[in-house]
Amino acid sequence: MQKITRGLVQNNATRIVLVVLDGLGGLPVNGKSELETAHTPNLDALARTAACGLHVPVALGITPGSGPGHLSLFGYDPVEFQIGRGILEALGLGMEIRKTDVALRCNYATIENGIIRDRRAGRIPSDQSRLLTGRLQAAISRIGDAEVSFAPGMEHRFAVRFRFPDSLPPDAALINDTDPQKEGLKPLPPVGETASARRTAQVAEALISQVSGVLKDEKKANYALLRGFSVMPHLLTFTEANGLRALAVAVYPMYRGIARLIGMEAPEVGGDVADEIAFMKTRFNDYDFFFLHVKKVDSYGEDGNFEEKKKRIEEFDVLLPRILELGPDVLIITGDHSTPALMKGHSWHPVPVLLKSPYVFGGLCGGFSERECFRGELGIFPTTSLMPLALANAGRLKKFGA
Amino acid sequence: MQKITRGLVQNNATRIVLVVLDGLGGLPVNGKSELETAHTPNLDALARTAACGLHVPVALGITPGSGPGHLSLFGYDPVEFQIGRGILEALGLGMEIRKTDVALRCNYATIENGIIRDRRAGRIPSDQSRLLTGRLQAAISRIGDAEVSFAPGMEHRFAVRFRFPDSLPPDAALINDTDPQKEGLKPLPPVGETASARRTAQVAEALISQVSGVLKDEKKANYALLRGFSVMPHLLTFTEANGLRALAVAVYPMYRGIARLIGMEAPEVGGDVADEIAFMKTRFNDYDFFFLHVKKVDSYGEDGNFEEKKKRIEEFDVLLPRILELGPDVLIITGDHSTPALMKGHSWHPVPVLLKSPYVFGGLCGGFSERECFRGELGIFPTTSLMPLALANAGRLKKFGA
Repeated sequence: MQKITRGLVQNNATRIVLVVLDGLGGLPVNGKSELETAHTPNLDALARTAACGLHVPVALGITPGSGPGHLSLFGYDPVEFQIGRGILEALGLGMEIRKTDVALRCNYATIENGIIRDRRAGRIPSDQSRLLTGRLQAAISRIGDAEVSFAPGMEHRFAVRFRFPDSLPPDAALINDTDPQKEGLKPLPPVGETASARRTAQVAEALISQVSGVLKDEKKANYALLRGFSVMPHLLTFTEANGLRALAVAVYPMYRGIARLIGMEAPEVGGDVADEIAFMKTRFNDYDFFFLHVKKVDSYGEDGNFEEKKKRIEEFDVLLPRILELGPDVLIITGDHSTPALMKGHSWHPVPVLLKSPYVFGGLCGGFSERECFRGELGIFPTTSLMPLALANAGRLKKFGA
Repeated sequence: MQKITRGLVQNNATRIVLVVLDGLGGLPVNGKSELETAHTPNLDALARTAACGLHVPVALGITPGSGPGHLSLFGYDPVEFQIGRGILEALGLGMEIRKTDVALRCNYATIENGIIRDRRAGRIPSDQSRLLTGRLQAAISRIGDAEVSFAPGMEHRFAVRFRFPDSLPPDAALINDTDPQKEGLKPLPPVGETASARRTAQVAEALISQVSGVLKDEKKANYALLRGFSVMPHLLTFTEANGLRALAVAVYPMYRGIARLIGMEAPEVGGDVADEIAFMKTRFNDYDFFFLHVKKVDSYGEDGNFEEKKKRIEEFDVLLPRILELGPDVLIITGDHSTPALMKGHSWHPVPVLLKSPYVFGGLCGGFSERECFRGELGIFPTTSLMPLALANAGRLKKFGA
């Protein structure tokens, strides 16, 4: 889609707001889904006059992770542009990633006479892991021409970023995991598949040896296994693709990270959804596009907590008028994937979406829910078509052909 | 789709049943289609709680043959993977086809002084044709390093299979038809386009000459025209693509043949649909996936017999509880294409489908028919997405991306 839209983009003074209620879609429990059960008078009223439908993030039957789900919403083909595991981990831990960087996710592990005894160092507590990661950072900040940064994660997990002086080619991270996947084996040496990857692998080898030095007196966490070597996917920035100055408003680092990956501004914000909306309001004159991320809907879906997921939707419904007051020309409310409480996890089900604009039919849905959206004028469509629809409804796309 | 799903497949203990009512879709006669007219309380009850929709086997407006229709259902792109006419004819006549084989369809023809007088040998009766084919097989069983097998068809038609000692490259059957398409012309010599095809063409030339020798005293059927040289398409087996051990239950050889082409087990079964279901029941613990083929719905559609097509659907409806008793985790009921009695043949119309699983909405359709399926939660979608949906609903696909 970007190939078509990019040449048609034109500027105007419109504002587009994309609200992502993470994991919005659900499934019926006792006959009704979370959205169907929730009391949402504001969303329902909006749905009655908006264009509604459902979108498919990757393909029918495919359950998307958060990375592909959001890339799709932002108009990027999630199969063509896959975000590496290392990059995603680093983003999730709040690291900023550039084209000069290789990111990897790491485990503290226990090694004895060169043999891995515990691939997770007994799942050491996060507090202890944080201290160790601080010690590593203090001792190791540069290897060769690479700046080295550490970010602590949960339990035995942490992320590492190598920042080189220049932009990296796409093959710079073609390196195997050093994790042998089984206890009782030796760790694998990191081997680069190409010249560029071999340069990265040398840094990785030095990292392993220096980490082992720093941790040599630890009982459990005396080694690091490296996995998911990856570089930034090579993609157009969001502004290049859509001509929009974009602000991401997200409390969780992972989503700010994905937004930054495509060049959105994503300042750190705290608080709850009301704070996010208030923050967006202060910046409403400075950008053309606003991505507002609401995490908690998904979190309770993942926990299988139908009631709490429902409540988060209701909480958002109460705040919706504050977004409407800003007077966005196009307002889209949707999710990045479904997370039915029934399934305690992401699912493949198409995601309900509502698009408010002066250029829609409306009148097809009685409210905002999956089953109502099946009747909607947008039908069931690929998520990557949502950005072109947003641009079109904002008057930001010229005619294709004469 | 297979490129995405293949890397996500995981195993579990679920069972998937795909029932293909051949040529299921219809068109209204006196206001109602075959499915709308049929009394189908069991299908209707199922449709009310299942996910329903319609699927498009090849593309909108394209009428599929049985080959593309079934390949699509099994998840193979029917445009990328085309089954050659020779292969399809051989499968339909009950021949087993391997990677070592070239298959062709043949006509008995009348030749006089090197000129084709009748391209169909006066459409000789099938009985007589069967005798001739028997004589050919008795006289010709090997040419060079190729085993040669014959299978009699209807009237002047028969099929031939060359079985070589080794697997063949995809170009081994790039050979023109020898049929000049008009009476009063000489037959064309078979010419191979590549070295590998020239080897096959030599066998074909010898075949023509040996057949002419055996038939030289026949008045009408004294020659053979060769058409549709083809090799097996190079595709993943169904198990490689989907991780499923699959059993095909089909009375007609053509459908067993297509199933075997992708590596399904397809034992010979006889009898009616009740026998097919009973057979499936005896094997229900041995496989993960069951393809149950019901032919007669299509046959009466092709005859333009609205009433009998309707009755075959009703007969299946009576048997449906026997399938439900087996407790499949995912049950799909659909067709491979539409065959409206009104049109006396296959048609391009999307095919109604019903998918029963614990992870659907349901409640959108009042029964099982084309018009009710248009309201369904699956929408109108490519047939190749049916296998990913089946796998997803069976919990057999991991998440895409993190």
